Amino acid sequence: MNLVVDVGNTYVKCAIFNFENLLHKSSFTLESFPEEYQKLKTAYPKLEKAIISSVGHLSKVQVDRVAEDLELLVLNSDLNFPFINKYQTPKTLGVDRMALVAAAVDQFPNKNVLVIDAGTCITYDFVTQDKHYLGGAISPGIRLRYKALNNLTANLPLLETRQPDKLIGDSTESAIHSGVIHGVTKEIDGVLEDYIYEYRDLTVILTGGDSKFLSNQLKNTIFANSNFLLEGLNYILEYNSK
Amino acid sequence: MNLVVDVGNTYVKCAIFNFENLLHKSSFTLESFPEEYQKLKTAYPKLEKAIISSVGHLSKVQVDRVAEDLELLVLNSDLNFPFINKYQTPKTLGVDRMALVAAAVDQFPNKNVLVIDAGTCITYDFVTQDKHYLGGAISPGIRLRYKALNNLTANLPLLETRQPDKLIGDSTESAIHSGVIHGVTKEIDGVLEDYIYEYRDLTVILTGGDSKFLSNQLKNTIFANSNFLLEGLNYILEYNSK
Repeated sequence: MNLVVDVGNTYVKCAIFNFENLLHKSSFTLESFPEEYQKLKTAYPKLEKAIISSVGHLSKVQVDRVAEDLELLVLNSDLNFPFINKYQTPKTLGVDRMALVAAAVDQFPNKNVLVIDAGTCITYDFVTQDKHYLGGAISPGIRLRYKALNNLTANLPLLETRQPDKLIGDSTESAIHSGVIHGVTKEIDGVLEDYIYEYRDLTVILTGGDSKFLSNQLKNTIFANSNFLLEGLNYILEYNSK
Repeated sequence: MNLVVDVGNTYVKCAIFNFENLLHKSSFTLESFPEEYQKLKTAYPKLEKAIISSVGHLSKVQVDRVAEDLELLVLNSDLNFPFINKYQTPKTLGVDRMALVAAAVDQFPNKNVLVIDAGTCITYDFVTQDKHYLGGAISPGIRLRYKALNNLTANLPLLETRQPDKLIGDSTESAIHSGVIHGVTKEIDGVLEDYIYEYRDLTVILTGGDSKFLSNQLKNTIFANSNFLLEGLNYILEYNSK
């Protein structure tokens, strides 16, 4: 039984897998990691292995604690990955993106797969049907666009994310909602069309914090899966344990 | 003969119009305004009227100086505009956007016109063929997206604007160029398609600092005109002098 830990800037996501089956998922602040980890240990005494992604935000004490209890793998670019990495700068490629690609080749073997992770940034990652990871793109995510309009200009307000009710905003607020949200959906739809033009047999996965919000606003058929990163981490853990 | 002054955060754009004909255009820093203004006064002794947009960044001394010499109009939302403003919050509508709409109704009468100003922000402004200004949208401009990726995330570098050479970036840098630039062009193309679907007889103007960079990257037919704002200001000056 595996513990999968994805550490973000402020939140930690934990998942328990029995082989490829997700048994449990929880999300909490960085500070409450020791307490939550103890709870999971108690609730799942059969835990054997663990993988931690973006370990930098956890203290060494906390990581060592997990390493004492479980067979621990810390995600980094020197591990074995189930794909051929054609990225020119693998050291600066976010390990999160490598976990997404691992999930893609595991779950959609022999397919061209584009993974779109709509979080702080929107990352696009493409892997061919013969498991060559080619790279992709990075653009600002939804919240980043709202924040940029407020932080980096003189007069625009910071708004909460909201579905625009029309194309033509007739107030500053509705104009911003239209610009940000339609901007993101048009970007994703347009980029998808370029990929589909080049790789006809394309599978598209949408994941990340904004995937639920976006999934029913896109023109193209996509699979929304908010657990894709956790599933990829679990797969990397298994792949490197063999 | 008219002097048109568009004051930005760091730069001032000046234009000299004889009726609707643009005779001269220059751009310089805020600090050099007094000196540049004096040069223009000397070179064009027939100047009679002036309009200043976004006057807030110029000192009162400088504005008073122009007002002593010329019949001065300071752009604000209480002037007469050659269109019916359906915007719900006209006081917070940037006066720049009103000048763009004025240019649209002047130069494309009896047309549905969408003006896209690709500057710090990308603003979309739509006016119907019967001169009803309905509003539009605001999204982050190209530089703002590059800056947001750097300022508002932990690990991404700040890059100079560059045309991506491929869809699939195979390094952090090329992935950012692809994400930002394709993101903007797909956004504009997609938004345009929604407008064209609703308003078949649509004229599209692309203006602003990034209009030249973007104009040959868009799928749809647009008119690129980097003087559109200055022309709109000149028209408002004439319209309010009658």
